[in-house]
Amino acid sequence: MTLFGPETLPYGVFSTPGGARRIGVRLGDAVLDLARAEADDLILAGGALRQPSLNVLMALGRPQWTAIRARVAELAPDLPAIPLADVELHLPFEVADYTDFYSSEHHATNVGRILRPDRPGLQPNWKHLPIGYHGRAATVVVSGTPIARPAGQLGPGEYGPSRRLDIEAEVGFVVGVPGRRLRTADLAEHVFGVVLVNDWSARDIQAYEYQPLGPFLGKSFATSVSPWVVPLEAFAPVEPPAQDPAPHDYLLPPGPALDIRLRVEWNGTEVSSPPYAQMYWTPAQQLAHLTSNGALVRTGDLFASGTVSGPERSQAGSFLELTWNGAEPVRLADGTTRGFLLDGDTVTISATAAGAGGTTIGLGSVTGTVCP
Amino acid sequence: MTLFGPETLPYGVFSTPGGARRIGVRLGDAVLDLARAEADDLILAGGALRQPSLNVLMALGRPQWTAIRARVAELAPDLPAIPLADVELHLPFEVADYTDFYSSEHHATNVGRILRPDRPGLQPNWKHLPIGYHGRAATVVVSGTPIARPAGQLGPGEYGPSRRLDIEAEVGFVVGVPGRRLRTADLAEHVFGVVLVNDWSARDIQAYEYQPLGPFLGKSFATSVSPWVVPLEAFAPVEPPAQDPAPHDYLLPPGPALDIRLRVEWNGTEVSSPPYAQMYWTPAQQLAHLTSNGALVRTGDLFASGTVSGPERSQAGSFLELTWNGAEPVRLADGTTRGFLLDGDTVTISATAAGAGGTTIGLGSVTGTVCP
Repeated sequence: MTLFGPETLPYGVFSTPGGARRIGVRLGDAVLDLARAEADDLILAGGALRQPSLNVLMALGRPQWTAIRARVAELAPDLPAIPLADVELHLPFEVADYTDFYSSEHHATNVGRILRPDRPGLQPNWKHLPIGYHGRAATVVVSGTPIARPAGQLGPGEYGPSRRLDIEAEVGFVVGVPGRRLRTADLAEHVFGVVLVNDWSARDIQAYEYQPLGPFLGKSFATSVSPWVVPLEAFAPVEPPAQDPAPHDYLLPPGPALDIRLRVEWNGTEVSSPPYAQMYWTPAQQLAHLTSNGALVRTGDLFASGTVSGPERSQAGSFLELTWNGAEPVRLADGTTRGFLLDGDTVTISATAAGAGGTTIGLGSVTGTVCP
Repeated sequence: MTLFGPETLPYGVFSTPGGARRIGVRLGDAVLDLARAEADDLILAGGALRQPSLNVLMALGRPQWTAIRARVAELAPDLPAIPLADVELHLPFEVADYTDFYSSEHHATNVGRILRPDRPGLQPNWKHLPIGYHGRAATVVVSGTPIARPAGQLGPGEYGPSRRLDIEAEVGFVVGVPGRRLRTADLAEHVFGVVLVNDWSARDIQAYEYQPLGPFLGKSFATSVSPWVVPLEAFAPVEPPAQDPAPHDYLLPPGPALDIRLRVEWNGTEVSSPPYAQMYWTPAQQLAHLTSNGALVRTGDLFASGTVSGPERSQAGSFLELTWNGAEPVRLADGTTRGFLLDGDTVTISATAAGAGGTTIGLGSVTGTVCP
């Protein structure tokens, strides 16, 4: 059974050798050429499908997204299909602002224990609001882009290449329709779709710099995203975990969770399976919080869930947690062990999810190899 | 003597009633229409002056910036001039990433004392690296835009409009030419010019949310910039303050400081005069630090100095410091007193600077009025 049947139909941007960037939809192991389909008047989208990125399509809004998706599903068997192996995939959208949350209770508690052992794992504000920060939009890159190990200040008097290079397995939400002061019920009107995110992190740079204004160079060198944006309506909504204490009114109702099951491979060895469905704060709450102060979200905004970690060690979404800051290395299939990333290491995060109508859909993967 | 003589010539984007946005240069109390000048073949800039924002011009690079500036100065008496009073000024560039530093030792020490009275004012890392964070590019607005008081979580169990709405008087640097891993000596090749910045801040929202990932909603509702971008070459470089301990090699040489003298007016009463020349970290060091990990800066990036505060209370760049968190209110000319901003209050930050050749140049002003 394919994870990319007619119930998934994710959007991406591809090119063939020597050709320009075009919008396509993945079906099985092929890409349907939507630019050609619109040029041939098979789909009417006002030119939105004849663009080098998804931004114009994403700005159209939910009714058009639904209509175009239905039309693509209907036409799929007859649309020009190019084998995936013959195309190059590109960053699917131009990133406006990139915001990263911190919404796994297990992750926040683990990181607190590791980085601030003298204080409680969870900060007092954590269950009252979805903690987040702004990241660097310029360094969001598509899956497959090599990750150059960053250099920086690693501690008092120390400068050099990071020795604690890490990943963060996350789920990202891509905004289509701009807005301010959104309610949680507005999620589906504004969010176009979902990608996988690896928020690469240099833990030593981060630990030295982050007081008092938060992560900066420890995270701004690269953030990788999967090339396929899975439409929000492809997912079967599920019940989110209970929240105690009850959040403020502007964060209610919480909106749905998504049952996305991540899988982290380190040089081909599966080391972790983080469960997104257990995240404490939902994407609807993150979007409502983000815009509650009047801040504008724009077409192309990316907001990420924060590291997805479950209660078990084998569900950790970062190597900081998986190896407990390097103290408990993991063994890979080739017999070597790892605390943090070595040059040449490859990390691939893939995922499947509960799809509408009881199906299982694919989100594809986001991969990257560390170079010196 | 005008502050906008031929030694200043800042760039902006203007429109006349019913007209499109055009690039202009300020000379005295008039705007020289550069779009028309290029259309008339008086200046050759490859179309860069016939754009609705400065971004294409800013991407050309230093040799072209210098050549165009010289040509504008030469032609100025003969160029079509529109009275300032007849134009509307717009955000002069499209903001790519917005980064805010924290480079005044006096400000960092004051804020530390106010917010974290149990610990030393300055964090241990502060003199080793220019601390900074990413802000929200979407909410950078031009001077004159009304500032809606943000609502948010003000503390445990409290939600409502901010009661401690504040300003931060800053100097902003606008990137023209993209780059990574820049040296401090690269500043003038990459930075196009300078604006004034008011980084509006809701201190109660910020204080509750900022641990552990830094400022988020407390600052993301609005950041105002002055409409005129003053070219870097209009400034006379001055010696920056000595740094002890010596910074790491990648932050040396420190590059020049700029002698920019800010002035903060609260409802027309001058309440503060922050001296930019005394900032501990220079813009060249901020740019080198920002890109040292491989992060990309792009055309339209804005990086701001951080609040400019001098050693005296009358040199504070924020009301948090000026009124010591509201405990020592200031008296305005109308006899009323203020701790933080009330609805209807107007703040105007203006500045002059030491210009090349012993002149004094103007940076204009950034203003905003608080509405409920």
